[in-house]
Amino acid sequence: MAEVKNKQVVLKDYATGFPKESDMDIVEGTISLNLPEGSNEVLLPLTGYGVAKVLESGHPDYKKGDLVWGFTKWEEHSLVPSSQILFKIEHTDVPLSYYIGILGIPGMTAYAGFFEVGLPKKGDRVFVSAASGAVGQLVGQFAKFTGCYVVGSAGSKDKVDLLKNKLGFDDAFNYKEEPDLNAALKRYFPEGIDIYFENVGGKTLDAVLLNMRVHGRIVVCGMVSQYNLAQPDGVTNLANLIFKRIRIQGFGVADYYQLYPKFLEYVVPKIKEGKIVYVEDIVEGLEKAPPALIGLFSGRNVGKQVIVLARE
Amino acid sequence: MAEVKNKQVVLKDYATGFPKESDMDIVEGTISLNLPEGSNEVLLPLTGYGVAKVLESGHPDYKKGDLVWGFTKWEEHSLVPSSQILFKIEHTDVPLSYYIGILGIPGMTAYAGFFEVGLPKKGDRVFVSAASGAVGQLVGQFAKFTGCYVVGSAGSKDKVDLLKNKLGFDDAFNYKEEPDLNAALKRYFPEGIDIYFENVGGKTLDAVLLNMRVHGRIVVCGMVSQYNLAQPDGVTNLANLIFKRIRIQGFGVADYYQLYPKFLEYVVPKIKEGKIVYVEDIVEGLEKAPPALIGLFSGRNVGKQVIVLARE
Repeated sequence: MAEVKNKQVVLKDYATGFPKESDMDIVEGTISLNLPEGSNEVLLPLTGYGVAKVLESGHPDYKKGDLVWGFTKWEEHSLVPSSQILFKIEHTDVPLSYYIGILGIPGMTAYAGFFEVGLPKKGDRVFVSAASGAVGQLVGQFAKFTGCYVVGSAGSKDKVDLLKNKLGFDDAFNYKEEPDLNAALKRYFPEGIDIYFENVGGKTLDAVLLNMRVHGRIVVCGMVSQYNLAQPDGVTNLANLIFKRIRIQGFGVADYYQLYPKFLEYVVPKIKEGKIVYVEDIVEGLEKAPPALIGLFSGRNVGKQVIVLARE
Repeated sequence: MAEVKNKQVVLKDYATGFPKESDMDIVEGTISLNLPEGSNEVLLPLTGYGVAKVLESGHPDYKKGDLVWGFTKWEEHSLVPSSQILFKIEHTDVPLSYYIGILGIPGMTAYAGFFEVGLPKKGDRVFVSAASGAVGQLVGQFAKFTGCYVVGSAGSKDKVDLLKNKLGFDDAFNYKEEPDLNAALKRYFPEGIDIYFENVGGKTLDAVLLNMRVHGRIVVCGMVSQYNLAQPDGVTNLANLIFKRIRIQGFGVADYYQLYPKFLEYVVPKIKEGKIVYVEDIVEGLEKAPPALIGLFSGRNVGKQVIVLARE
């Protein structure tokens, strides 16, 4: 039991532009299940990306058998240095995959971004891009709980239907069918947008800037359309920041981890009472991880992308 | 005394692109110095753009002979509706022109923008564009009072000398002599920028985004290089907002008028003790107003542009 096989996803080369499946390889090595002498590290076999069970621990906060979540490597077993933050899973009466979704980073991101950065008020008009994604679908539901009007954009008819019929958005549209995004936003927000929850960047941001209201807030969670472009789109309407006294704020969820208990108080009862919906796109096996990653950039996934390596 | 001649600057046509002198006309009409019956308006002859003496008043807060400042029309005498905010001048032992500069909108703009929006801390690295202008020159001095490192950019050797030798900036450069603004900023800010006080927009903003530090703040006061372009420059580096968790905030001084007494407490003693410098570019006569306006867009003025119509 000293060594076990350990499958990993590795990057073959530095990838330029959007990643391709051929940039990645699945390799099978071995890993020792015995901790180095005197170690305070934690040894994990992954049961999913970020949700795992502790096999051995030299760290006082974690003991063998604990379920934890956190950012880990793409491999079946991981040795986690003590400096890395892991969250212990207390509520086990929800699907464990929720800890990489609604109860994990995407959930905290939606919560911190919408409430702490967006500072919503009842009646605010909220626009969410990539609205059916891991984060967006929650922002829309949080906006409805707050008494806001919320419209989402997504990239397929199925996703738009999901937003309108299952996730409770007031309205939704397929951005791929809108040759003039400015006109589309004017249709859905004749009085303008108070909060834009930004997941995509580029042309969408440029159109949004033309439609913000005075003192509007743009919460920058991601700019997924821009990350891998050699030459990102030019955003030309930034002078509206002055005309409308707009705040644009980039944020990282790591700055808000201290709110995690407060977040759980907010969201766990809503899950148990069935008041909140979380859509996952689940595939089985580490081999499926590379194509699933590629799919994120083209919008192939519907909801939070989950890779299952093992079940509890 | 019922009617007096009243010279005005009028716009002949809707101006497209950068304004030209030929877009404006000087006309001479008349204005009644008697208030309409029962009026609570205030009748003003201007002694400068925004600094004026009350000739007649139906408003309880202002009486004949009061000196006031505020936004007025480009004319020698003005009838000011009661709804418009005027500030009464209490300190008359400073140049009255200061009330359209360091003690007026530019001063309040620098104060609110730097302190309230920028949230500076001692040791912060501050970059100011259009740094010798009406607002920029004060931001730089406020930054030094706060214990920050501050570098300004401007468009001529004279302005750069002014920043370094008279206004107390730690360093300054002529952006027209920097073909690579990103490289220039890396030279002046090897550890990055905490606060960028934005007056120009476009390419400068794009280069700044590459050089911001984590949790940096971009205070958007103006984007003078962009206002009159049919096609504004595209800003391509906005993904840095996420990577560095940056806040960009447009603001308008009107949201901060309640801080005016606090601002005077901060700045008036510094003026009287000679600790602060304010550079003005003064021309005489309303006829000089149109070319002075044009000059602002090409950076012809040095310091706050003042038009003198009459002296006290």
